[in-house]
Amino acid sequence: MLEELKKKVYEANMDLPKYGLVTFTWGNASAIDRETGYFVIKPSGVDYDKLTPDDMVVMDLNMNKIEGKLKPSSDTATHCELYKAFPEIGGVVHTHSTWATSWAQSGRSIPCYGTTHADYIYGEVPCLRNLTKEELEDYEVNTGKLIVEHFKQADVVAVPCCLCKNHGPFTWGKDAAEAVHNAVVLEEVAKMAAICEMVNPKAAPAPQCLQDKHYYRKHGANAYYGQ
Amino acid sequence: MLEELKKKVYEANMDLPKYGLVTFTWGNASAIDRETGYFVIKPSGVDYDKLTPDDMVVMDLNMNKIEGKLKPSSDTATHCELYKAFPEIGGVVHTHSTWATSWAQSGRSIPCYGTTHADYIYGEVPCLRNLTKEELEDYEVNTGKLIVEHFKQADVVAVPCCLCKNHGPFTWGKDAAEAVHNAVVLEEVAKMAAICEMVNPKAAPAPQCLQDKHYYRKHGANAYYGQ
Amino acid sequence: MLEELKKKVYEANMDLPKYGLVTFTWGNASAIDRETGYFVIKPSGVDYDKLTPDDMVVMDLNMNKIEGKLKPSSDTATHCELYKAFPEIGGVVHTHSTWATSWAQSGRSIPCYGTTHADYIYGEVPCLRNLTKEELEDYEVNTGKLIVEHFKQADVVAVPCCLCKNHGPFTWGKDAAEAVHNAVVLEEVAKMAAICEMVNPKAAPAPQCLQDKHYYRKHGANAYYGQ
Amino acid sequence: MLEELKKKVYEANMDLPKYGLVTFTWGNASAIDRETGYFVIKPSGVDYDKLTPDDMVVMDLNMNKIEGKLKPSSDTATHCELYKAFPEIGGVVHTHSTWATSWAQSGRSIPCYGTTHADYIYGEVPCLRNLTKEELEDYEVNTGKLIVEHFKQADVVAVPCCLCKNHGPFTWGKDAAEAVHNAVVLEEVAKMAAICEMVNPKAAPAPQCLQDKHYYRKHGANAYYGQ
Repeated sequence: MLEELKKKVYEANMDLPKYGLVTFTWGNASAIDRETGYFVIKPSGVDYDKLTPDDMVVMDLNMNKIEGKLKPSSDTATHCELYKAFPEIGGVVHTHSTWATSWAQSGRSIPCYGTTHADYIYGEVPCLRNLTKEELEDYEVNTGKLIVEHFKQADVVAVPCCLCKNHGPFTWGKDAAEAVHNAVVLEEVAKMAAICEMVNPKAAPAPQCLQDKHYYRKHGANAYYGQ
Repeated sequence: MLEELKKKVYEANMDLPKYGLVTFTWGNASAIDRETGYFVIKPSGVDYDKLTPDDMVVMDLNMNKIEGKLKPSSDTATHCELYKAFPEIGGVVHTHSTWATSWAQSGRSIPCYGTTHADYIYGEVPCLRNLTKEELEDYEVNTGKLIVEHFKQADVVAVPCCLCKNHGPFTWGKDAAEAVHNAVVLEEVAKMAAICEMVNPKAAPAPQCLQDKHYYRKHGANAYYGQ
Repeated sequence: MLEELKKKVYEANMDLPKYGLVTFTWGNASAIDRETGYFVIKPSGVDYDKLTPDDMVVMDLNMNKIEGKLKPSSDTATHCELYKAFPEIGGVVHTHSTWATSWAQSGRSIPCYGTTHADYIYGEVPCLRNLTKEELEDYEVNTGKLIVEHFKQADVVAVPCCLCKNHGPFTWGKDAAEAVHNAVVLEEVAKMAAICEMVNPKAAPAPQCLQDKHYYRKHGANAYYGQ
Repeated sequence: MLEELKKKVYEANMDLPKYGLVTFTWGNASAIDRETGYFVIKPSGVDYDKLTPDDMVVMDLNMNKIEGKLKPSSDTATHCELYKAFPEIGGVVHTHSTWATSWAQSGRSIPCYGTTHADYIYGEVPCLRNLTKEELEDYEVNTGKLIVEHFKQADVVAVPCCLCKNHGPFTWGKDAAEAVHNAVVLEEVAKMAAICEMVNPKAAPAPQCLQDKHYYRKHGANAYYGQ
């Protein structure tokens, strides 16, 4: 079942090491089929060079495995929470990519220093708080709930990513490919923001009007970028 | 028409990801044919691995599309302003390359710390101011006008590049290949200047006489570098 | 003899340049066969592109060469000390990988800033003191003894790596492949910790409860990561 | 003539981009035949992907071209001064490699922070002063004379490299291949020293006894590294 979606999720997962975002098995991509309410995700701890489309695991939104011989990613419950809360989201990615993870470890949100950032992410990339000791008991679910809690007050489409403190980034999009795309953007944005501050510790975020200009050049009714 | 130029502009665009200057579609190269007054530029938002020479768009200096099935790069008006103002320029490149963009985000001009820089760029790489909110209404045109305004007081041949604050670098040259070459130089110069300051926050620019020596070793009547 | 182990040690050594951990001959991997008490190690100063499984050297734990036409790695005595002291260890790796070596040169232990670290290493990566001038007379043996001395008070399984001050990293595991795996982890962890501090000089280690959660998600009786 | 040496110098030059030390034509390697007193060097400004062994230029120590259709590297006179002053040297390399050049731009000598450095270079990598305005009139010759002046008081074999302020590194060795090897070592050492100081601004050089141990493990009568 969902053979086409499995293939797309497989390809999205394979793009993670291709873009240099993942070492070993430190990442996972998923996508949801909104008609059936099932989502497809990478199995846990399987090497990328042994992965096949058939290894993908099909889950429902109650965390039941619908199909698949392997255990799903240990982060599956986090993906699930995002799909349940946000119908706008069709794909989710988690990585430990170097620069985004370093920002997550630093506990700081990433300011919007330029148009590379503004083209894809409206405003700063939020760094969410640590879970409490109690919340850690149901770790992956509560990581998802924390992200959902934040984005209930924000715009999950305009800000397609966040950092979990001392952990790493999550990104999303309309499908798995867009979630991967945003993971690449976030890594590059994180790298350039760190170097920007190294070059000028007093650097200020880009003016709001420039951020708006670039964001709306690519998004919304008046977008004019691309074909 | 302009088949030869289209091929060269295509190759210049393909060199941008090859040299690691461009992620996804974040860059564009163009070149002008001064006889017809037409310039050739990459289409907007097309993946590099799907690009062909035939996809290149031919424009005139009044921003009319002369040939091409696709929309030209969203930055076309900036290229156009440069071609109109500076007959010495035959090719223009815009990228979001990591280190040059980080300097642009920091709002600082890049000091000339050494001969790698001086071999190609006479004096610092200027970081131009932000556009005002009003200027942003005609964003790409006014980005071009701002660069032109700066170089009316400077030497567009001796300084074949600039940074646009909170945005990124533009480079140029006698043709598209030289503009790409200068984009590679600028990225490397930006990286070495940042590391230089990391190693020694009190580093001073290279002595003017050394800058002169290297610049004129490669440029002008007494150049003796190369064959 | 030990043909299978030689092949594995050869492959572990070949993985070091593949993962970008080793320039020229600056690294070595070994593994022990606990039944015979013999261990297999890379020969000294042989280029990776000329290495074959047959070049591997077989040693006993008294530092006698049992088989092999070449001299063993100059660091063999350090590997030997680790195998003698810790029956839990089946493989050892030494490299001069860039970021881990830079931390070793800095003389600082690497704090646990996040879950990438906590997934593999429980608590900080210790940076061990310099050897004294007297200890340097039997350099490689005393490097091993220093590591052993430290881990007699610590947990050599939970912390599968250390830094030797002004020198570089040693890692280990149940076999040569796992020791290599931990060398890759350590290099990435070292890089992210350095960038983390660059982004936020006041960054604090991850909360202990988060470190515990991630470590025990992958290790011990209640582990649930992987298949 | 000197066909074998031309081939080796060609291969040494081709190794520079292979090891990531050279962008475009920013580097050159040479080697001398002490019997004839002729040295072979790369031609000036020729692309690496068009270079052939036959393009190599043969020079004598009075800077006369003995053979070759092309102009020799613009840095030829610097190589020549080194060959004249130091009979121990058989090969010379100049690059603008990123990290070594950044240190040269910073004007600082590179402290010996660890054994990677000590294995190849005894003590710090000296950063030599700028040439005076007068000396710049005979730039390449005086660059050579400045290096010679420094190493008349030092040990050109124990320290096979230096930095020229605001310019970049020169390295040397018994032949062209060893000079390239030392250029790779210097780049890695420069990178690790910069990161070391980033991680710990108060980092101290490695103890002298450890530096001695590692240097003499690889060099001199009691060396025991390698086969």
